[in-house]
This record gives sequence, C-alpha cells and structure tokens, in this order.
Amino acid sequence: MATLKKSPTTVNPDAAATVHQHLQDTVTDLIALALNTKQLHWNIQGPRFQSVHELLDVLHAEYLLQIDELAERVSAVGHPVDGRAATVAAQAGVPEVPEGFVRDDAVIEMQLKGLESVINRVRPRQEHLGEVDAPSEDMLIALLQILEKHAWMLRSQK
Amino acid sequence: MATLKKSPTTVNPDAAATVHQHLQDTVTDLIALALNTKQLHWNIQGPRFQSVHELLDVLHAEYLLQIDELAERVSAVGHPVDGRAATVAAQAGVPEVPEGFVRDDAVIEMQLKGLESVINRVRPRQEHLGEVDAPSEDMLIALLQILEKHAWMLRSQK
Amino acid sequence: MATLKKSPTTVNPDAAATVHQHLQDTVTDLIALALNTKQLHWNIQGPRFQSVHELLDVLHAEYLLQIDELAERVSAVGHPVDGRAATVAAQAGVPEVPEGFVRDDAVIEMQLKGLESVINRVRPRQEHLGEVDAPSEDMLIALLQILEKHAWMLRSQK
Amino acid sequence: MATLKKSPTTVNPDAAATVHQHLQDTVTDLIALALNTKQLHWNIQGPRFQSVHELLDVLHAEYLLQIDELAERVSAVGHPVDGRAATVAAQAGVPEVPEGFVRDDAVIEMQLKGLESVINRVRPRQEHLGEVDAPSEDMLIALLQILEKHAWMLRSQK
Amino acid sequence: MATLKKSPTTVNPDAAATVHQHLQDTVTDLIALALNTKQLHWNIQGPRFQSVHELLDVLHAEYLLQIDELAERVSAVGHPVDGRAATVAAQAGVPEVPEGFVRDDAVIEMQLKGLESVINRVRPRQEHLGEVDAPSEDMLIALLQILEKHAWMLRSQK
Amino acid sequence: MATLKKSPTTVNPDAAATVHQHLQDTVTDLIALALNTKQLHWNIQGPRFQSVHELLDVLHAEYLLQIDELAERVSAVGHPVDGRAATVAAQAGVPEVPEGFVRDDAVIEMQLKGLESVINRVRPRQEHLGEVDAPSEDMLIALLQILEKHAWMLRSQK
Amino acid sequence: MATLKKSPTTVNPDAAATVHQHLQDTVTDLIALALNTKQLHWNIQGPRFQSVHELLDVLHAEYLLQIDELAERVSAVGHPVDGRAATVAAQAGVPEVPEGFVRDDAVIEMQLKGLESVINRVRPRQEHLGEVDAPSEDMLIALLQILEKHAWMLRSQK
Amino acid sequence: MATLKKSPTTVNPDAAATVHQHLQDTVTDLIALALNTKQLHWNIQGPRFQSVHELLDVLHAEYLLQIDELAERVSAVGHPVDGRAATVAAQAGVPEVPEGFVRDDAVIEMQLKGLESVINRVRPRQEHLGEVDAPSEDMLIALLQILEKHAWMLRSQK
Amino acid sequence: MATLKKSPTTVNPDAAATVHQHLQDTVTDLIALALNTKQLHWNIQGPRFQSVHELLDVLHAEYLLQIDELAERVSAVGHPVDGRAATVAAQAGVPEVPEGFVRDDAVIEMQLKGLESVINRVRPRQEHLGEVDAPSEDMLIALLQILEKHAWMLRSQK
Amino acid sequence: MATLKKSPTTVNPDAAATVHQHLQDTVTDLIALALNTKQLHWNIQGPRFQSVHELLDVLHAEYLLQIDELAERVSAVGHPVDGRAATVAAQAGVPEVPEGFVRDDAVIEMQLKGLESVINRVRPRQEHLGEVDAPSEDMLIALLQILEKHAWMLRSQK
Amino acid sequence: MATLKKSPTTVNPDAAATVHQHLQDTVTDLIALALNTKQLHWNIQGPRFQSVHELLDVLHAEYLLQIDELAERVSAVGHPVDGRAATVAAQAGVPEVPEGFVRDDAVIEMQLKGLESVINRVRPRQEHLGEVDAPSEDMLIALLQILEKHAWMLRSQK
Amino acid sequence: MATLKKSPTTVNPDAAATVHQHLQDTVTDLIALALNTKQLHWNIQGPRFQSVHELLDVLHAEYLLQIDELAERVSAVGHPVDGRAATVAAQAGVPEVPEGFVRDDAVIEMQLKGLESVINRVRPRQEHLGEVDAPSEDMLIALLQILEKHAWMLRSQK
Repeated sequence: MATLKKSPTTVNPDAAATVHQHLQDTVTDLIALALNTKQLHWNIQGPRFQSVHELLDVLHAEYLLQIDELAERVSAVGHPVDGRAATVAAQAGVPEVPEGFVRDDAVIEMQLKGLESVINRVRPRQEHLGEVDAPSEDMLIALLQILEKHAWMLRSQK
Repeated sequence: MATLKKSPTTVNPDAAATVHQHLQDTVTDLIALALNTKQLHWNIQGPRFQSVHELLDVLHAEYLLQIDELAERVSAVGHPVDGRAATVAAQAGVPEVPEGFVRDDAVIEMQLKGLESVINRVRPRQEHLGEVDAPSEDMLIALLQILEKHAWMLRSQK
Repeated sequence: MATLKKSPTTVNPDAAATVHQHLQDTVTDLIALALNTKQLHWNIQGPRFQSVHELLDVLHAEYLLQIDELAERVSAVGHPVDGRAATVAAQAGVPEVPEGFVRDDAVIEMQLKGLESVINRVRPRQEHLGEVDAPSEDMLIALLQILEKHAWMLRSQK
Repeated sequence: MATLKKSPTTVNPDAAATVHQHLQDTVTDLIALALNTKQLHWNIQGPRFQSVHELLDVLHAEYLLQIDELAERVSAVGHPVDGRAATVAAQAGVPEVPEGFVRDDAVIEMQLKGLESVINRVRPRQEHLGEVDAPSEDMLIALLQILEKHAWMLRSQK
Repeated sequence: MATLKKSPTTVNPDAAATVHQHLQDTVTDLIALALNTKQLHWNIQGPRFQSVHELLDVLHAEYLLQIDELAERVSAVGHPVDGRAATVAAQAGVPEVPEGFVRDDAVIEMQLKGLESVINRVRPRQEHLGEVDAPSEDMLIALLQILEKHAWMLRSQK
Repeated sequence: MATLKKSPTTVNPDAAATVHQHLQDTVTDLIALALNTKQLHWNIQGPRFQSVHELLDVLHAEYLLQIDELAERVSAVGHPVDGRAATVAAQAGVPEVPEGFVRDDAVIEMQLKGLESVINRVRPRQEHLGEVDAPSEDMLIALLQILEKHAWMLRSQK
Repeated sequence: MATLKKSPTTVNPDAAATVHQHLQDTVTDLIALALNTKQLHWNIQGPRFQSVHELLDVLHAEYLLQIDELAERVSAVGHPVDGRAATVAAQAGVPEVPEGFVRDDAVIEMQLKGLESVINRVRPRQEHLGEVDAPSEDMLIALLQILEKHAWMLRSQK
Repeated sequence: MATLKKSPTTVNPDAAATVHQHLQDTVTDLIALALNTKQLHWNIQGPRFQSVHELLDVLHAEYLLQIDELAERVSAVGHPVDGRAATVAAQAGVPEVPEGFVRDDAVIEMQLKGLESVINRVRPRQEHLGEVDAPSEDMLIALLQILEKHAWMLRSQK
Repeated sequence: MATLKKSPTTVNPDAAATVHQHLQDTVTDLIALALNTKQLHWNIQGPRFQSVHELLDVLHAEYLLQIDELAERVSAVGHPVDGRAATVAAQAGVPEVPEGFVRDDAVIEMQLKGLESVINRVRPRQEHLGEVDAPSEDMLIALLQILEKHAWMLRSQK
Repeated sequence: MATLKKSPTTVNPDAAATVHQHLQDTVTDLIALALNTKQLHWNIQGPRFQSVHELLDVLHAEYLLQIDELAERVSAVGHPVDGRAATVAAQAGVPEVPEGFVRDDAVIEMQLKGLESVINRVRPRQEHLGEVDAPSEDMLIALLQILEKHAWMLRSQK
Repeated sequence: MATLKKSPTTVNPDAAATVHQHLQDTVTDLIALALNTKQLHWNIQGPRFQSVHELLDVLHAEYLLQIDELAERVSAVGHPVDGRAATVAAQAGVPEVPEGFVRDDAVIEMQLKGLESVINRVRPRQEHLGEVDAPSEDMLIALLQILEKHAWMLRSQK
Repeated sequence: MATLKKSPTTVNPDAAATVHQHLQDTVTDLIALALNTKQLHWNIQGPRFQSVHELLDVLHAEYLLQIDELAERVSAVGHPVDGRAATVAAQAGVPEVPEGFVRDDAVIEMQLKGLESVINRVRPRQEHLGEVDAPSEDMLIALLQILEKHAWMLRSQK
C-alpha cells in the first residue's frame, strides 16, 4: 500500500485507522450495490418495467453520492481509498445478481436483498464509529436513513 | 445465460449478435475506466490536485452517460448486458491503476493510458459495426469523438 | 390496527416499536401545528399582517416537510402511521387556536406557544430515541434545530 | 365567533354570507381529503406502490393550493375561515379511511370515493353561488375541473 | 376616432361595441390605479415602509398584466383602445392621491380606496358583459378575484 | 364504439353525452387546425418567412395544449375521444390548405380563415354547454379567449 | 403540386428528389404514429394506466421533434412537405388503432406494433439515403436509435 | 407640496434641488413615453405587426426600469417625486400619439420621434448634473446609452 | 509591506498610489459596515424584527460584492489590499455598534448612521479619484448610488 | 510551423494529416463567415431590420460553436489549428461583404451566398474524410445539416 | 452586556450558557478565518493563482453559511452573539496572515494552518456540547465534516 | 464608404465622427484580441493547460460582449462599423501570436501583452471621448475596468 505521507495533524491516528476500515468496507459494498443496480436497470423485464427501471436509476444516483461522500471522508482522515473493480469483486459483501434478463418481481426482491445486506453490515460500523469519530458516525447515520427508506419503499411494492 | 425470449422482429439476429458482442465489450471497458477514474479522483496528491480532481469527475460523469447509452442499445437489439463487478474485473481491457495515493502527474498519465487503451479497442469495433448496424456504429463514432477529445486535453497537460 | 405483515429484517422489533410511538406522536403534534398555522395565516388582522401572513406560510411548508420525513421513517421501521383529522384532533398535544379573526400580536404569541409546546414534547423523545435508534434520533435533532430557530424568530418579534 | 369588524364595502352582506357558508364547507371537505391522501400515501402496500404513492403526493399538493385559494376568498368577502383539526373532524363530509396499512387497489378505491364525495357536494354549491357571486362560483368551477379530472384518472386505473 | 377597418367576422358588432365600452373604461381605471400605486411606492414614509413599498410593486406588476389582457381583448373584438396620459387623466374614476410624501398608514388607506373604487365600477360591467360576451365577462371575473383578494390583504393591515 | 363501462357517478348521463359531442367535435377541429399550421410552418415562403414561421410554431403549441385539455375532459365525463387521422380527415370543419409552397401573405390569410372557422363553430357549443355543464363551458370560454386573441393578431398583420 | 421555384444550388437535384421521397414518407408515418399515440394516451384503461398514460406523452413529444427535423430537411433540399390530415390518413403505413377505450396491455401492444412498423419502413430508407445524401441518412440513423430504444422499453413491459 | 421633513445629511441641499428638478422632468417624460408605447403596442396594424408589437413591449419594460431608477434617486436626495396621470399629461415634453389604429410604418416613426424628443431633453440635463452630482449624472448617461441605442434600431427599420 | 514586484505597465505609478489609498480606506470601511450589519442581523429584537432582519442580509450581500470589486481594483493597479480583522478594527471610520440585543428602531438608526458615515467619507474620495483615474472613480460613483439608495430606504422607515 | 511533439498514439498519421487539412480549411471559412455575419448584423438597414438583425446573431452563435468543435478535433488528432485574422483574411473561401450600411434584402442575399459557398466547399471534404476518419466525417455531416437548414431559411425569405 | 430579557422556556439555562460560550467562540474563529481567506484571495500571486484564487472564494462562501447557522443557534438559545471587528481581532484563535502579496504555495499553507487551528479548537467544543445540547453538537459535527474535507483538499495540493 | 443616409438628429456630427473613429479602432483591436485568444485556447500545451484553456474562453466571451456594445454605439451615432477579417488584419494594433502549439507560460505572457496593448491604446481614446460624448466615454471606462482586471489576473499567474 502507498505510504501515508500526509497524515493530518487534526485526527487521532487510531481513530483514523478505524474510520478508514469501516468506511472503506462501506464504499466497497456500495459500489457493488450500485453496479448491480445498473445491471438490473438494463435487464429488467415485466409489466412493472417502466417504474422499476426508473426507480433503479434514482437509487443508483443516490448510491453514487454516498460513495463519494464516504470515500472523501477516508481521504480527510489521511488514508487512501480503494474502489477498483477487482477490489469490489473480491471484498464486497453484497449478494450477487445473475447475468441475463430478470423478471420485475425478482428485480425488486434482489434489490431489496442488496439493500438489506448493506444496512445490516453498516449498522455495527455506525455504532463502532460513534465511539471514535462523531463526524464519520454522522455520515453512516445519514446513509442508514437513506438506505432504510428505500428498503421500505421496495418492501412495500411486494 | 438467460434465454433470449423477446427478440425484436425489427433486427436481424446475426447483426444483433455482433452488436451485442462489440457493445458489451465496450460497456465492460468503460465501467473499468469509470471506476479507475473515481479511484484517481479520490487518491490524487500534488500541486495540480484541484483542477485534475475536478476534471476526473467531469470525465466520470461523461463515461456513465456513454455506458448507459451503449448498454440500452444492447437491450434494444434483444440481448442482456453484463456490468457486474466480477465481469468487469475479469474482462475489461483497461490498464490497472494502483491502490494508494498517486501523484498528480502520474494520475494524468494513467488516465490518458486508460483512455487510449479504450480508444484503440473501440476503433475496430466501430468499423466492424459499420458493416452490420448503422445506428450502433453511430454511437461508437460519438463515443470516439468524446474519448479522443479528452485524450487530447490530458495529453496537452504534460 | 392493521396486521404488521412486512416487518423489515434489518430493524430490532423493540426498537421499532419505540420509534413508532415517539415519531407517531410527533407527527400528530406537527399536523395540528400545521393546521393551526394555516388557520392563523388566513384570519390574521393588524398592522403586521403582511409579514406575519407570509411567515406563517413559510413555517407551514417547513412543517409539511418534517411531517413527511418522520411519517416515512415510521414506515421504514415497519409500522403504519396515523395522520387523520380525528386522530390529530384527539391526540395532538398542541394548544388550541380560536376560531375567527385574530390580531397580529396574538397570532405571534399563539404560534410561539404552539412551537414551544412541540419543542418541549420532542426533547425527551429525542433523548429516548438516542438509546434505541440513531437514525431516528438524528431526525428529531434536525427537527429541534428548525423548531427552535423559528421559536427564536417569533420571540424576537415581540 | 369573532366579531366581523372589517366587512368590505364592495360586497353585498347576504352574498358574502352565502359565499362564506359554501366555501367554508368546501375548505373543510378538502382538508379532510388532503389528510386522508397523506394517510394513504404513507400506508399503501402492493405492486402499484411506486406510482400510486407518487400520485397521491401530486394530488395532495393540488388540494393544498385549492384550499388556500378558497380560504382566502372567504377572507376577501369579510368572513373568517375555520380549518382546525377538530372542525375538520366534526364537519367534513368525506368518507373515512382506515388506520394501518392498505393494499394498493383499496387505496385507489378509497381515494376515488373521497374525490367523488367532494365533487357531489361541490356541484350544488357551485350552482348556488352562480346566483350570488360570480367570482366565487368561478373558483368552484375550476375546482370541479381539477377534481373530476383526477377522479377520471383514478377510475381508469381499475 | 380611427375608422374601424378590420372588424372580425366572428363577433357580433353590438356585442363588440359593449365589450369595447366596458373594457376601455376598465383599462383607464387600472392605468390610473397603477400610476398612483407607483406614486405611493416612491413617496411612502413610516415604520412599515419596507413591506408596503414592496407590496405596492407586486400590485403594480399585477395591474400591468391585467391592463394588457383587457386592452388586447378590446383589439380582439375589433376596436382600438386608448391608454394615453391625457385620456387617463380625464376619464379614470379612481380617487386622486396627493403629491409629496405620504405616511404608511395613509398609503394603505389610499391604495385600498383605489382598489375599492375600481371593484365597485367593475362589478356592474362584469354583470352586463355576462349578457353579451362570455369570454369578456370571464376576464372581468378573474380581475375581480384578484382585486378583491388584494383589497382584503390591505384591509387586514389596518 | 367501445362499451362505456366506467361511467362516473358524479356526472349526469345526458349532460355527459352533450359534453362528449361538443368537445369531441372541437378536438377534431383543433387537430385539423394544428396539422394545417405545421403544414404552413414548413412550406411558407416570402419576406415575412421568419416571423410567421415562428408564430405558427407558437400557435401549434397552444393548440396542442387545448386539445389535450378538452380530450381529457371528455374522458372525465366518461366517454372515449377520437383523434385519429382518418376521423380528423373525415369530420373536421376546417378549410383545407394546399399542398406545396405558399407565399407568406396567403399563409396569414389561411391561418386566419382556419381560426375563424373554429371560433364560429365553438361559439354555439360554448353557449349550449353553458346550459348543461359549467366546467366544460368554462374550458370553451378559455379556448375562445385564446383563439380570438390570435385571430386579432393575424388580422392585424394584413 | 406547387412549382419548385427555389431549388438550392448546393444540392444535386436527383439526390434531393430521393431525399424528398423517403423523408416525406417518414413524416407521414410519424404523424400517424403521433396521432395514434395521443388517441391511446386519452383512452387507456387498466391498472397500468398511470405509467403508460405518462409514457405515451413522452413518446408523443419525441415524435413531434423528429417530425419537425425531417420536414425541415425536406425543405432544406428544396421540396415542399405534406403533413395534412387527409394525406396522413391516405398514405401512412402504420397499423390502425381502434376507437373507444383500450385496456392497458392492448395499448402497449398497439404502440409497439406501431413503432415496429415504422422502424421496418425506415431501415431501407436509411440505407438508400446513405448512397445519396449523408446528412439526410444521419437523421434517419438518429431516428432509428430513438425508435428502437422505445420499442425495447415497450417490449420489456410485457 | 409636502414638507421635506427627512432631508439626508449626506447631500448638499442645492445639489439635491437641481437633481430633483432634472430627474423629476425625466421621470415625467419617460412615463408619457411608456404610456404612448403601450398605446401603439395595442393599436398597431400592418404587415410588420408581429415584430413591432413585440419590440414595443421590450421598450416599455426598459422604460419602466429606468423610471424606477430615477424616481428612487429623487427620493434618495430627499425629495418626493410625482408620476400621476394628471402631472404627466400636463408636463411631459413628448409628442402626442393619436387615438385609434395606426399603421406599422407610422408606429415606428412615432416611437422614434418620442425617443428623440426625450434624448434631446435629457442631454442638457445630464451635462448640468455633471457639475452638481456625479451619481445622478451617471444615471442619465446610462439612460442615454439605452435610448440612443433603441433610437438607432428604430431608425434602421426605415 | 510586501515588495511591489509586479507593477502593471499600463498604470501611472502616482495615480496607482492614490487609487490604492482611497480604495483601501473604502474597503476597510465597508468591511466594518458589513460586520456590524451581521451583528445587528443576529441581535435585533422588536416588532419589526422580520423585515429588518431580512433587509440587513440583503445589505450585507450588497456590501460584500462592493468590497470585492474595490479590493480587486486595488490589485489591478498593482497594490496589495488589507482586509484583516485587526486592520479593520484599527482603521475603519464607521460608528461602533453595541454588543448584546438591540431594539429594532435602534437597529435602523445605527445602520443608517453607518451608511451615512461611509457615504460622507466616500464622496471626497470619488471626487479626488475623478482627477487621477476614471475607472476607479466610476466604481465609487456606483458605490454611492447603492449606498445612498439604501440610506434613503432606511431613513424612510422612521 | 510548430513541431508536432505530442502526436497521439491512437490516430494514424496519414489520416491525421488529412483531417488537419480539411478541418483547418473549414475553420478558416467559418471564422470569415462569422465575422461577415457580425458585420451585417451591425450595418443592416431596412424594414426587415429587426428580425434579420436578430437572426444574424443566432447564426453567429451557431458558427462559433461549430468552429470550436472543429478546431478541437484538429487538436485531438495532434495538429495545431490556425484561426488568426491574417490567416483568415488570406485563406478563407467566402465571398466578401462590403463596408458601410447594407439594405436588408442585400444582407439576406449576402448571408445566403456566404452559407452556400461554405456548404459547397464542405461537401467534398466530408466525403473525403468518410474514407479516412469516421468521427471527423460525422462532424462535417452535422455541420452540413446546420448550414443547409439555415440556407433554406434564408432562401425562403426572398 | 445586554440584559437577557427573552430567555426561551424550552431551553435549560445552564445548557444555554454552555452553548453560548462554545458557539460564540466558534463564530469568532470563523469570522477571522473568513476575513483571512478574502485577504489571501486578493493578494495571492504565482502560477497556481487561478485555481487557488477561485477555491478561496468557495471556502469563504462556505464559512459565511456556517457563521450564520451558528450565530442564529446562539440566538435560539436566548443569548446575543458578538461578531464585530474588534471582538474578532481580540478573541479569535486563528493564526495571522501577513499584509501584502503572498506566493501561491504560502497561501495554501496559511489557509491549511487556519483550517487546522479551527478544527483543533472545535473538536473539544463539539464533544462538550454532546453532553448538554444535541442540536448544537450536531451543528459542530456538520462543521467538522466540512472543515476537515477542505483541509484534506488543501493538504493534497502540496 | 457607404453614404451616411440616416444621421440621427440627436447627435452632433463632429462628436459622432470622433466617436466613430475611436470606437471603430477599439472594435478592430478587440476582434484581433478575441481571435488570438481562441488561437491560444486551441493550441496551448503544458501543465497549466486546463485552467488557462478555460480562462481563455471566459476572456473570449467577455471580449465578444464588449465588441458588440461598442459596434452598436457606432451605429447609434450614425456611422457604419467595420469588423471584417481583412480590416482587422490590416488595422488592429495588437501583437501577433504565432501559429502552432504554444507552452502555457508563453500563452499567459502573450495574452497579457495583448491585453496591455489594448489598454494602452484605449486610455487616450477614453480621455478624448470624455470631451465630446459622455455615453461613449462611459463605455470605454467600463471596458478599461474589465481589461485591467483581467490583466491583473494574468499578471498574478506568473
């Protein structure tokens, strides 16, 4: 890994390492979720195509914003971040989506499963960060608000 | 692969298969390029940080638009598209970027190398598609205009 | 009450019940406050009519946004929400406003009293939620910031 | 009730009283309808969740605009208006909606029933006002155009 | 007066003459009202300067829109319209405002008196036009809605 | 014709039938007028090309809005509407425009004749609807205001 | 037909005649498709009413833009264009849609059939124009991209 | 005239009186010009109707802005301003326009004459103010730039 | 002071020194005025709170724009500018405002006094600059127009 | 000429040289055309002044966009571009326009001649580039669409 | 200090005093930082002038927003705030910047030092407020997110 | 030269001739400067490419606005203006820029030299016009403010 040459003097190194670890993992999860979301956006078929196809684009845009926020927070505490395809493929904890066309009901189910897996992984990270770095914890709280809202909206479509 | 149940009656199956192949490959390349672009956007360091950091975001947004255009053209000719992290990691023909911080000059060099590799891969696909499907070829021509323009701008920064 | 068929797997049931209780009560309070605000917006009379009439519309719009945020958080933790006129009339803890025209000074006093009553009811809910669900607590913190700011502005008009 | 101190010299007192009565009743009906609309917006469940959830918000915004128009017309003819929760709960002639979650088909049915009940109550008021105050009648005509259009759109969804 | 060379074939000449008369008178009244409104906008003094100064500009803009609507309706029925300073000075039925500075309370009173005088003059014209030309009547109904709303708002400031 | 399965309970069937008849006829007239307007927009030649070419596009956009308003009112009273090319060609009461290029003066004359023919056909429908359905009559009044304004503007260009 | 008085000196007459023929036919097809789209937009009934009703308006707007582009290209090569209702009714090669209400599934099927018929008619025209006039061919390529994308989206809704 | 109670301490009284005189006269001139402009805007007839009708509205809006600027400068130096119809009719030095319809060529001539008369009256005022109050002179310089530009554009239309 | 290494060749050094002196003094004055304005914006109390609180923000924004214009003009003539807190505290010629809450009438009085003190200090600078650098003088003329207008508006509120 | 130090590795050198030659010539032509367009925009006189004066500005803006597109394409293939006044004066193949005022009819004729001369020069370049570089050819096709459309609009004004 | 007459009944006095102290100190720090930022914005010199000059303006705008938020929170808990030049000069804990021109590298270093000093002073205040007032703490958390992000971006430019 | 047929009656002929001479020369200078700016915009190379490339576009847009202002002022005083390539090449007093690629430092130097040469030529023209035509002088003052500001910004980049 690259030498950490420019550690900020305003952050406790141990706290920074913990922030790095939890946010890096969340970035990886969200990139995988975002890629899967586009995958479903393109390959969905079924009577609910139109509204789900559009909804997935809204979700995708929201994930991108969150990824950027979190990745730049990692930088702000002095660590590099890793969002390359290989890293995402190897480390993200998000259920896979299949190749090929997918029926609309299955799309909703898959997207919900993806959201729930990220929520369940982020919850303990948020609590852990609450003990070491309030600004970072606050970002995960905001992330949970967004993810849980979208999970509800998908769950309600069943 | 998913059964191709809903082949459009307006497209020649052989042409569609060729379109699928070339655009699928281009989608994979562009997703890898987009992920690498964000990677550099976050980890860049050096005196030119500000303008290169911002430029990479502009490039990233441009790539996302192109990916969507091409992926939906694949759908339009009746094939599913594959943009998942594992597929991208395995199949994209784009040079890797390192983990960790990267100096600004190296960032420009890497981004230019990435762009040039995609340009060189897209050129023959565009020519080949010119023989089988004009609307698909036209999309790759537009893509080349954009990629070559950005390659020039990066090359001029050296 | 409707059977709770679609409880999310990402939320602890006990936490969800507490969130439901405190946010439902806050939604009821805010709907009553919003209706009273429009009531005063229409019936105000006096030399300060113009600016208070307009200010009340700004407040009303702000309350509607908060109501929606909180009500959808209740849904996100798996519970239905209740914002019907009869429920609001029966359960909201907001001081009544009179029918008929009201002089501008009294309007300011009434609106301030309404705001203060909601603030005083939300404070302990926010603290309680801090122990069970950070994302929900965070919403009440944001609500308090808004309500207390507007209370100050009304208080300063005296 | 508050003394009517500032009766405008440009309006016939009898006409004003009739305008007051019919528009006050319409305001009450519309507030009840608007509250029920949000209730369904939050608690809807089913495959059509997404589009109906969004549609209900459009309807709600439209109702709020109409309520404001009518309430300010009451003021313009010199009477106070009453839109408090208790008044709405006691006097509105709109069918109740249940507490708890509601399936999407039932939501559409309930919203249509609500709209139709208001339309049927407004029609005779509009005709009656035609005899006493053209500007007020014109507002109810515009209201009927809007309500009947939305009733059609809901009816067509069945 | 200019010869009426281009009478439209779609309008009854008698109706057109009546429309011309009533709308021409209303245009003259509104121009006088608009000029007086700017006069007060510039010369107002007193503690309520800020909000009344701004309100008068809103009213002025609204009057200009109405003047244009009505003047072009006169043209649409085949008659010329007259909005010159001398015509307005000679024929408008709007109470005068004084030269020099005016205290804010007096400004509100004068503007209200101006509005009420126009309302009282427009009412019978609207009713008369209802018998000869529905589109023209409809414009005066819309005008009354606007004027009466603003009269209420001024009346409420006392 | 399609069975009328979803007649609204808020509209009198006889009134609905009359509304259907008059608005259907007006929709047909306006579609023919709109198609002729584009025809002239494309084929006009002469020194006034620029301003008339642009004006025709403004008129076309205005007609499209009116067509949609009226067609959806037909739906709102429970009837289907018919705006197909063959129906328009067979039933619209609008003077024909020639194929081929047209000089600018002739374009203005033709467009004016088209407008006047629609105005003359809509006037009695508006009056008739005034006896059976106020909201529908109100739409034709608004239509007449627009059409007569544009007829004036074209007439003034001669 | 009108004499072609103003043939441009920059276009080969034979090429212009071929461009005229193919684009005139495409304009006629698209006008018919646009009219049918509005027809279905107004008369659709069924559970998917909301999203299909809105989608048809998006498609209609897109067709209008394409019609204008192509019609003005015909003018640019020196020929008049014909888009009158009778011409469209007589010459367009688009399947008819029925009068009366249509269920949502049938609407999607009809709109898809309409799109596919235009695509199949435009393909050979595009190829033919490729031999005589590149700018005109380029417009049909862009048209095909749009039509084939929308055909895919409709096909996916089944 | 109203007593000048609130003379600013930052302005020399003699300078203020001169500013008052010259700007008051300019305000009166511009109001007369603006009213005449609308008069011509409504009553113009002839082949150039469309572009001149629109141009006059642009000029009118520009005059209104200038009137407001100058009137408020009078206030800023401690004097009231007078823009009432009777004052304008009595004191403005702008050539009259006739009642009734006016041909387009004559409209352009009249508007140009009006502009030139104001320019010729403002020139010496600007020079005079240059000796007593630079900020006031600067406003008349800006006014001359605008008026002379529009005079050129009208002159070029002949 | 920093060495003036980059003196522009287009400006006379003596003129530049005078411009520097007068604009530097004006920048210091305006920064003090802007800080005092925010101070009053936060601490105002009284019945006119709402409109004065908002007006002060408008004034503050206007001052910031002027400060930037003038400071960059100092740079344009080759001198550095000084806008640090200590410099402002030591050199600005603006009356102090008190700490703690201030009643609305006193706020208006203080803001007016601040404005008038700056106006009286800027007037001679503007005249002096008129002799050495027209572009710099022109900026102070524009500043005086703005400050004197706002002084009038505050003076009129008494 | 400057040494070509940074030739892109993605473009064939011979193709690049041809692209350079044809696009450089087109840039020179378009700059001359743009300068002539502004010349006519300023010096036009005659009854059609208003609309032609404005049209020329629209054309000028369009030319500037095209110039930039093409010049940057030259850079993208590794060559410098030359758009200096002397180069344009010496090499552009566009008919001259006279100094001094020009009547409106002559302006239209001159602008049309300028457009036609560029179209006739670009046509063979587009065809030639079709054989060596599709992205560059595509830009000239788009240019021809725009130029030929505007040539038609000018031709139609005669 | 001004008597605290209007203490809100919704806030604990001891908590309010602590909030006052910490936020007042933060306001003073941020005003000093904002003034220094403008100082550097005006006086920067060096090859990175353009991007750093612009970046400083972005930072300045961000600081102003934060200052307003915090100052109004002080008011909301019932205390006055102090942001006058003398107070800032005496109490702010931000390193000084020099007068005169500053090279770009030094500008970045100074701005970073300023940011870091504020961050280090705000951290303990945020933690302390977490014990007494959640809404106030939340504002400092948001402030830290912003300041630390900008500190990273400056640090990366080295 | 074209006969000056339409001399305005509001301008002194001698003054007009002087205005013509000085503004015509300034227009020529600015067109040359604008063309050179685009030349550098396209051909720049070096590490500062991105920000200088963009800055040159901002400058170019600013020059175009100024050219238009000045050219139309020439027209306003009754003279034609000359901005053709040959005139510019022959008469502009702006240093040449080379053909071919230019390094970024040299670009900044050349652009600054161009700006300074125009400033030095405009200064005496502005002073001369101050004696004959205040509105024209005012335009050159505004031009100097803009040019000198940009000269400073370029000078600071060294």
